[in-house]
Amino acid sequence: MTEVSIISTCSKKPGRIVTNKELEEKLGLKAGIIERLTGIQKRHYLGEGESLQGLATDVCEEVIKTSNLDPSSLDMMIFYTDVLPTILENNQLKKIYCEISPHIQYLLKERDIAVNCECINIGGSCVSFISALQIACGLIKSKAKRNILIVGAANCSNFMEKADKNVAMTFSDGAAATILTGTQEKGFLDFYCMTDGAGYDSGSIKNYEVLYVDRKRVAEFAPKAFKLAVDKFLEKSKLKLDDIDIFIPHQAGIKIIERGIKLAGISSDKVYVCLQNDGNTGAPSLQMALANAIREGRIKDNDLILLIGFGTGWHYGATAFYYKKIMNNNV
Amino acid sequence: MTEVSIISTCSKKPGRIVTNKELEEKLGLKAGIIERLTGIQKRHYLGEGESLQGLATDVCEEVIKTSNLDPSSLDMMIFYTDVLPTILENNQLKKIYCEISPHIQYLLKERDIAVNCECINIGGSCVSFISALQIACGLIKSKAKRNILIVGAANCSNFMEKADKNVAMTFSDGAAATILTGTQEKGFLDFYCMTDGAGYDSGSIKNYEVLYVDRKRVAEFAPKAFKLAVDKFLEKSKLKLDDIDIFIPHQAGIKIIERGIKLAGISSDKVYVCLQNDGNTGAPSLQMALANAIREGRIKDNDLILLIGFGTGWHYGATAFYYKKIMNNNV
Repeated sequence: MTEVSIISTCSKKPGRIVTNKELEEKLGLKAGIIERLTGIQKRHYLGEGESLQGLATDVCEEVIKTSNLDPSSLDMMIFYTDVLPTILENNQLKKIYCEISPHIQYLLKERDIAVNCECINIGGSCVSFISALQIACGLIKSKAKRNILIVGAANCSNFMEKADKNVAMTFSDGAAATILTGTQEKGFLDFYCMTDGAGYDSGSIKNYEVLYVDRKRVAEFAPKAFKLAVDKFLEKSKLKLDDIDIFIPHQAGIKIIERGIKLAGISSDKVYVCLQNDGNTGAPSLQMALANAIREGRIKDNDLILLIGFGTGWHYGATAFYYKKIMNNNV
Repeated sequence: MTEVSIISTCSKKPGRIVTNKELEEKLGLKAGIIERLTGIQKRHYLGEGESLQGLATDVCEEVIKTSNLDPSSLDMMIFYTDVLPTILENNQLKKIYCEISPHIQYLLKERDIAVNCECINIGGSCVSFISALQIACGLIKSKAKRNILIVGAANCSNFMEKADKNVAMTFSDGAAATILTGTQEKGFLDFYCMTDGAGYDSGSIKNYEVLYVDRKRVAEFAPKAFKLAVDKFLEKSKLKLDDIDIFIPHQAGIKIIERGIKLAGISSDKVYVCLQNDGNTGAPSLQMALANAIREGRIKDNDLILLIGFGTGWHYGATAFYYKKIMNNNV
């Protein structure tokens, strides 16, 4: 059976930088409290003239260019987000619910990048990147598709105006794109994903307007889910903690990650964290973190990477894969 | 490689029957015009105490029972819709955007049906059922999953109050569920799916409140997409029109179906239509039609069925599979 590897990754933050100082003043919080509670030092929001679709199109353009693939050889685009879409019309963001993936395809075409393929949309929580990777691996391994583009993006800032302080200090905007292809060398080894619907009401957009997260339940669930995702994945894949070179968790918040690491028995020097600069962008946070780790040179050729996802729903899951800088030469 | 077959199907309409007479009076239309333009004689809306999640849970319960599978052997639930979710709280529908699949899992558990598996959500157009079938086939063929439950549902009536007359006379509510499993005998033969993002703005929920469809563009695009889906599928799969025993198209409207059949060169006595009783429920319409055709005995053992999907986005696609009543005995 064909193996599946990641050949290209990209992440991008929008232009408006929001410092803790600005946010603490706006929310009436003591100076320094946001960093102490979340580990976040700054975050990025969509700025003037920016949009979810534009940001997603930017990362797609970049990831296609660095992949060295002809855009016409892409067989599928999988878009995911956990937030409601907004659409930029005449420089104003409009509340319009519609599919994002055909819109990205349309915007890429305007940039002379013809991605003529099936485009689908996944709506989920902070484990969506792992779900999308699993779907892509199934389609490539079964020879239904050869090259798949996964793009995740979030516009949390559009639903923050009336959000409570804990939500406002945590969430931000961003996008990431990844291309997977069929290879001869081993890339993805296995997946473990699970849902416990007891958390179905732990996160939502109330009245289609206010980003809501049940902070108390999430704070309790997330570290346990972190450990469950790691343990269950290792059990299923017959891998050991020592086999993993680098652990990349969903960038939920520093306290959740620290508790999760401790529960799972992982050494913190093997864990990649970038939330200090990005905040928690929700669904695309894990995909952004992977792209950041690669860009920063944190990942060496043939490293075995474990992605760890968990979120409202409840969902949790993990996947491990070998990464090589120029895996596409093996196709 | 494992083959994939459908072993169980179910569809359900909610309780509130809306006649053409009622709708024509409400919209100030001439008597008889709705049936003449759309082919629809009646449709069903969510009634008092009913909800999208409840309806979806009902079809899941039924499809699991008729499959003879232990619910614990389901490895994945794929939910899809093209409408915004609403949540029933204290007998009132609330505008709350959140994932539906964990909620269905939770409601099934309350009915003592423990579906402990990964639950994901797809948001798309009237081709979503085919996308979900393709995802499920990839995961089963690559041995990542064995048994997958696909559930589609729509609550169009919640976004109809301010919709234009053409939308109001066409769309309605409903749900369907299907279980796929790995088999030895051939089930699914192939898939063809394509997106043309030029239609990205042809359907949406404006202001998160008003169901909008660009009727003129859809009326022009849909019959062409019908033909493209059939032609491209046959070309890819090397099947011929004569190989197909029954054609089941998305139940868009009688004029679109009639034009599509004519363009594709299909004999109308081999085409299944149920929109006269159901209306167009949007995304789940195709899945409901398949379940209805099976329930009504329109499909014989070993019939080769072609599903044809097309919709806003633009998207179009098709898949063909052999159906047997008791395919699960072959597992």
